[in-house]
Amino acid sequence: MINYLNSNFENYIEELKDFLRIKSISSKEEHKDDMINCANNVADKMRNIGLENVNVFQTEGHPIVYGDWLHAKGKPTVLVYGHYDVQPVDPLDLWDNPPFDPIIKDGKIWARGANDDKGQMFGHFKSVEAFMKVKGELPVNIKFLIEGEEEIGSPSLTKFLPKNKDLLKADCVLISDTSMFAPDTPTITYGLRGLTYMEIEVTGPNRDLHSGSFGGAVANPINELAKIISQLQDKRGKIKIPNFYDDVVKLTKKERDNFRKLKYSDKQLAQELGVKQLQGEEGYITLERLWARPTLDCNGIVGGYTEKGAKTVLPSKASAKISMRLVPNQDPKNIAKLFEKYVRSIAPKSIQLNVSDLHGGSPLLSPLTDKAVIAAAKATEKAFGKKTVYTREGGSIPIVVEFMKQLKATPILMGMGLDTDNIHSPNEHFLLKNLKYGMLSSLYFLEEYSKI
Amino acid sequence: MINYLNSNFENYIEELKDFLRIKSISSKEEHKDDMINCANNVADKMRNIGLENVNVFQTEGHPIVYGDWLHAKGKPTVLVYGHYDVQPVDPLDLWDNPPFDPIIKDGKIWARGANDDKGQMFGHFKSVEAFMKVKGELPVNIKFLIEGEEEIGSPSLTKFLPKNKDLLKADCVLISDTSMFAPDTPTITYGLRGLTYMEIEVTGPNRDLHSGSFGGAVANPINELAKIISQLQDKRGKIKIPNFYDDVVKLTKKERDNFRKLKYSDKQLAQELGVKQLQGEEGYITLERLWARPTLDCNGIVGGYTEKGAKTVLPSKASAKISMRLVPNQDPKNIAKLFEKYVRSIAPKSIQLNVSDLHGGSPLLSPLTDKAVIAAAKATEKAFGKKTVYTREGGSIPIVVEFMKQLKATPILMGMGLDTDNIHSPNEHFLLKNLKYGMLSSLYFLEEYSKI
Repeated sequence: MINYLNSNFENYIEELKDFLRIKSISSKEEHKDDMINCANNVADKMRNIGLENVNVFQTEGHPIVYGDWLHAKGKPTVLVYGHYDVQPVDPLDLWDNPPFDPIIKDGKIWARGANDDKGQMFGHFKSVEAFMKVKGELPVNIKFLIEGEEEIGSPSLTKFLPKNKDLLKADCVLISDTSMFAPDTPTITYGLRGLTYMEIEVTGPNRDLHSGSFGGAVANPINELAKIISQLQDKRGKIKIPNFYDDVVKLTKKERDNFRKLKYSDKQLAQELGVKQLQGEEGYITLERLWARPTLDCNGIVGGYTEKGAKTVLPSKASAKISMRLVPNQDPKNIAKLFEKYVRSIAPKSIQLNVSDLHGGSPLLSPLTDKAVIAAAKATEKAFGKKTVYTREGGSIPIVVEFMKQLKATPILMGMGLDTDNIHSPNEHFLLKNLKYGMLSSLYFLEEYSKI
Repeated sequence: MINYLNSNFENYIEELKDFLRIKSISSKEEHKDDMINCANNVADKMRNIGLENVNVFQTEGHPIVYGDWLHAKGKPTVLVYGHYDVQPVDPLDLWDNPPFDPIIKDGKIWARGANDDKGQMFGHFKSVEAFMKVKGELPVNIKFLIEGEEEIGSPSLTKFLPKNKDLLKADCVLISDTSMFAPDTPTITYGLRGLTYMEIEVTGPNRDLHSGSFGGAVANPINELAKIISQLQDKRGKIKIPNFYDDVVKLTKKERDNFRKLKYSDKQLAQELGVKQLQGEEGYITLERLWARPTLDCNGIVGGYTEKGAKTVLPSKASAKISMRLVPNQDPKNIAKLFEKYVRSIAPKSIQLNVSDLHGGSPLLSPLTDKAVIAAAKATEKAFGKKTVYTREGGSIPIVVEFMKQLKATPILMGMGLDTDNIHSPNEHFLLKNLKYGMLSSLYFLEEYSKI
């Protein structure tokens, strides 16, 4: 099977390129047709590797694609989850190469989605293909569930899941949509942060005013919004929303020790990000801040005149998108309520406030003793020829939490990406060697998991 | 002379209508010929009322028209400034009557430029005419300077002024291009605010990051920009930039008393602007905040993801346009320096800061004890038969400051318009009674000023 994968690798790259050419941006209405094409492409892939019961489920949003192979009697069932949708590509002028015109350069494949998640999930398709073509069967039962709304919070899958629990029933959910701890370091991620994503709109006067004629007499929505944002965190980096930390599970000593053993350098990260120094919550090392502590970030802000030059406007409105990363056991809806309550309490009467909860997801923590987790660690160790490390991750994959909650399936996050792969940014890319590690790890996992 | 003006008023209206028929829109290339026609029309008017040395100066833009009468030996010199250009007329369908087809209705003349500034400056032409026809001479020396680029920022006059200081030398500059404080209220505006307009750009990481993967470890440029903005003013509405208020000339008791006598309602303004309550610097009433106190307003802000929906980006950059309205004797360049110094002092090391001074203008204050101001107040009082009010204005008219700086001439803003006259909007109009008040005020001013 290894030979099969190796000898077909060049073809796989071409297939992946075709996949990456589809502009499957889920958040943009104008890519509706691209999303349909992409879903059909995924379904074709499933059929080509020998999956059965392939189905493109229509939803209110973008299609969900399903396929399975369930002939490994007495063996566990693995649900492979991935997503065919990608992030928007703006600012376009920062891409060295067009985002939907993939190229191979420096041992990497460059395109939007090269890593997140088209490139990463591709490995699982190929490991199944290798089994089916070489052995004619799989060592475990397998289900593929590939959605098109991960980047916009999986609204359709969230509705689909509780209605299709039998269809999706599995012992573990295998996902490659995260990063390795470091290059060439097999990594199993056992924790994810959750998310509450809010939007605040501040309205001052009922129309844009001349800042000369009215400046000084009326609240300026941008200044007021800035004041609100500045009051969300204190100088020590703590979030000031009352009761925000109430449900936070403290890190165990073992975890803190584990994190401290990992090879990690603040200086290097600062250098890589081009900042003089890092910045975060006092009392925690960077890995703890990233993986196990809640955070608050503005994701966008806009108001008034934003083009070149000067316009003396006192604008009517300003708005900001603000998200909080959550850790177990913070509840996204509860955090949204606390956020709104606090923001309303600090806003002056001279403005009107509109606070919306755009979306959210729960944080996650998998037991390190689970069989699937152990099999995954063995598989990646074998693929990489190195000891697997256990990490948590700062990002959120809300739907993973739903798998755990609703299917009682253990999530296995077998990430093949690197933090330097520019996902969600211009010049996204994926190392070809990691594409290969992904195929091998997937293959070994199916083998290892069937033995347990 | 009053009789002369009264008996000719009907003819004047016809003359003004002809003036208003010329489509002198300075910002539109297709009206280039109309601008030339209009400049020649102004020159003819000057000759017709008995001015000498009438000259249409060609510029890189639209012509500047000059004329004078300098035979009042030992008497002061008045420079009358006005502009023959008008604003564009779109949206055309909102005009009840075509903008360049003036009509008289409801005691008002309706047309583009009826107020701003053809109608307002017309009064000065007619007061000079009355003197010359009835008495054969003027009680003071007079110079008329009428430009065609006021609505586009006076670029040609700004260049013309320093090169023609001798030609334009005067003791005061008489301008009717502002509004009365209220209907039937003779108003002399003796102060204008200045401006310093800055832009701050905050750079955090060298690229847009995923807020999950990096949130908590690195400074977020939007959050940091918000913190900076929030530190520009304190809770009492004071600007926190050190030394910012050093050069502010305090309001005199007389001024504060004057402002408090003016009929003005916070409640009404709040209602008109659609806000629950006004907001401004503590310790000052609204008119003081608007006219005589420096302010700070964000005019624009942008960073990160600003379209619909959610994107979990931790952006690389965020920027804000921030302007300060200045009062005498604040210096725009000095304020720009203080602003930059302070902003740099409060910014954390984890971000990079770019601060630019986009443009500025000096504030203006004509001393209430100036002879021209006193003469103007007496003149309007006599014309209206009511006590003159002294106001300042929150906005800036940069060319007026240049007159004061370069010619050492006291500006007299003798506005005859009303805020409800729809200047710059469809259905611009000017009350015929205010046209007459303008003629009389101008006439009395020349008389009063010659006596002092």
